[in-house]
Amino acid sequence: MSVLPVAIVGMGTVGTGVARVLVEEPERMTQRTGLRIELRKAVVRDLVRARDVKLPAGVLTDDLQEVLRDPEIKVAIHLVGGISPAREILLSLLEAGKDVVTANKALLCEHGTELFARAKELGRTITFEAAVAGGIPIIAVVSQCMTANQITSISAILNGTSNFILTQMIQKQQPYADALKRAQELGYAEADPTMDVDGSDAAQKLSILGELAFGTKVPFGALSRKGIDTLELADIKYASELGYTIKLLAVSRLVDGKLESHVSPTLVREDSPLAQVNGPFNAIALQGDVVGDTWYSGRGAGQLPTASAVLADLVDLAVGRAQLTFQKLELWKKQERFPLLPSEKSSSRFYLRMLVEDRPHVLADIADVLGRHEISIASVIQHEAEATENSAPRTTVSLVIMTHRTTGGQLQRADEELKKLKAIKTSIVQMRVAD
Amino acid sequence: MSVLPVAIVGMGTVGTGVARVLVEEPERMTQRTGLRIELRKAVVRDLVRARDVKLPAGVLTDDLQEVLRDPEIKVAIHLVGGISPAREILLSLLEAGKDVVTANKALLCEHGTELFARAKELGRTITFEAAVAGGIPIIAVVSQCMTANQITSISAILNGTSNFILTQMIQKQQPYADALKRAQELGYAEADPTMDVDGSDAAQKLSILGELAFGTKVPFGALSRKGIDTLELADIKYASELGYTIKLLAVSRLVDGKLESHVSPTLVREDSPLAQVNGPFNAIALQGDVVGDTWYSGRGAGQLPTASAVLADLVDLAVGRAQLTFQKLELWKKQERFPLLPSEKSSSRFYLRMLVEDRPHVLADIADVLGRHEISIASVIQHEAEATENSAPRTTVSLVIMTHRTTGGQLQRADEELKKLKAIKTSIVQMRVAD
Repeated sequence: MSVLPVAIVGMGTVGTGVARVLVEEPERMTQRTGLRIELRKAVVRDLVRARDVKLPAGVLTDDLQEVLRDPEIKVAIHLVGGISPAREILLSLLEAGKDVVTANKALLCEHGTELFARAKELGRTITFEAAVAGGIPIIAVVSQCMTANQITSISAILNGTSNFILTQMIQKQQPYADALKRAQELGYAEADPTMDVDGSDAAQKLSILGELAFGTKVPFGALSRKGIDTLELADIKYASELGYTIKLLAVSRLVDGKLESHVSPTLVREDSPLAQVNGPFNAIALQGDVVGDTWYSGRGAGQLPTASAVLADLVDLAVGRAQLTFQKLELWKKQERFPLLPSEKSSSRFYLRMLVEDRPHVLADIADVLGRHEISIASVIQHEAEATENSAPRTTVSLVIMTHRTTGGQLQRADEELKKLKAIKTSIVQMRVAD
Repeated sequence: MSVLPVAIVGMGTVGTGVARVLVEEPERMTQRTGLRIELRKAVVRDLVRARDVKLPAGVLTDDLQEVLRDPEIKVAIHLVGGISPAREILLSLLEAGKDVVTANKALLCEHGTELFARAKELGRTITFEAAVAGGIPIIAVVSQCMTANQITSISAILNGTSNFILTQMIQKQQPYADALKRAQELGYAEADPTMDVDGSDAAQKLSILGELAFGTKVPFGALSRKGIDTLELADIKYASELGYTIKLLAVSRLVDGKLESHVSPTLVREDSPLAQVNGPFNAIALQGDVVGDTWYSGRGAGQLPTASAVLADLVDLAVGRAQLTFQKLELWKKQERFPLLPSEKSSSRFYLRMLVEDRPHVLADIADVLGRHEISIASVIQHEAEATENSAPRTTVSLVIMTHRTTGGQLQRADEELKKLKAIKTSIVQMRVAD
């Protein structure tokens, strides 16, 4: 039987998971590929650190050159995070004649065009199923299974950390800071959670997925993006009163031939499928013009779900499918197939919350501003002001308004005018409401 | 640009949908494949029937020989239903050197072993994404995306007709016959709905999917199978009282190294994802030993969703991926990888409903029988007997029992003993309860 020697570069959580399956299930990999997959090298920074996998002698090394100089290693599994030296390592693997499996979404989002072009020049293949939505095979679905379709809409929960925190906040009434702490204790959030909770991670994944689905690159910087890190429990409570829950939604869809894309905390109806996705799970609602609505969910991160995606790519490379897909996909081209819809023209219903003075004519003034900007009010919540501790009447009250469909631009202009009203005491919380 | 001439054999609903995309979206197909896909022939039985697609002159024919004799036609899309002549047509296409895309689940379930072996002998490929779950790319998921996994469990709604009827029964309180009539009016059920509503169609799909997932063929005849055609509204009502809804579930899973497979109306918790799948949709909960739980849903039938699957196969053949997958998959082999778990050994909680005499000691007698067969009772519903029209007390009452986990065999033996109790007036309705 032929042998396919492979290397793993980066033995963190996912690398260890990949190594475990390769070492513990060699027959399974052979059955899928007809080859004996040999883990020849695993490149680490620290040779002495204990690891959760028993590797044969000579596999572990801290010298990338041992991979680059071994011409028998045809496939490298690139599990180095961040941009640099991850980019340089990936390029050096390509130059050394390796096909590369990577899970690095940040790198692909920022340097995908360069990396894919270089791979094509060199006749090499890059696969990246693990870069988006962990164990959900959404890259294969979009690039292979939906080829009869023009995909028309992606609406997705792509960051498991944020979804876990939101679930804690919603189900346990925990404030953001407490929910984040719980996520860190359970290993769902990193010590520095910024990229997860500020929407960056979801935006990077959406950028990659959107380019595959729409043939149009929305650069990270052009993606309207907001995280859950400023979300207050009050908004979760009011959303619930209105029959909604809040999810960090990544949306990319065609609207009259233009591409609308954004990541933001969004109100979704409590009975909708997206509202049922709890904890560290990811989900993707994908609409195609032939297939209609389809839906995928699973664990979006974690050692083994991500390893499952990495190893599917490895099998596809071993079998030869990945090379064909990579050659045929008109990927990462500079040509923009759909113009981007500016966020001020993107339309949605909106949830607004503001703290207002509890006195006559305030609601009338606010409604007047919205009306003059042609923003129609769908529903309003304003409860009686609660007495303060010393029984004196409170002088401010929360006002929640759900609008009918309007554009980001109209809302922005109304917001600027509302800010001038003395009766509104704080900046206005704004969130999209899913269709 | 190279041209790939293809033929469609069978221009029913799906064939017409496939032809429409090929004729109306030629550039899309070229962009996916790098080839011009030319619909050269469309074989029909009736040349004069009006069709929903405008085909170029000379494409429509009633002579299969025009396809078989044209060596340039490399791919045939086989959309002929039933077993004969569908089997002979598929074999003749293979013999004539064509790769074949088929959507015929009944044929693959019954003659897959023969057809796949013949294709391999001839160096040809058969693809069948459209045979299972319509627009959900579950064949690709199982055979390409989950290759790192031993799949451990499939739990699925695979028959859209049954699911539509169940949804009508549950949401509108319609009896089975009325719900079926409504499904027929809307085109979700055929004039003869037998194969859909008696569980056969779901069992055929489960047999195909299970063989891919477990490498083990469960012949159609060995698949324990029950449909929704005898389901009564009363059971939907009692299930709802217990917090459950009823779905036609197709289940195939590993239990202690043995393969358990069955299709049956099953109680699923109202808050579970399967309970949210309504109308003509299909859904598949797939568990792998590496990836964990994943979930797929979409339209399981219909012109365009099925065409989406057929065309994905066509693109995979045009690109060359399908051939590699077909060569590598150790498909349809006679070797059984997992022994089958006999249905009497398959364990589950069960729902039981029986009509019993409304007199002392009846419940005690029934509980005694169950207890002696080591079947533990989890919950009981018995409402006060309602007065009959003439105010005379009713003499019978419905008794609903939910058991703890027991085996099919124990339940069977208890049922035989219960039948002998004079207090039980009708045969006992039995349904599985999903975990």
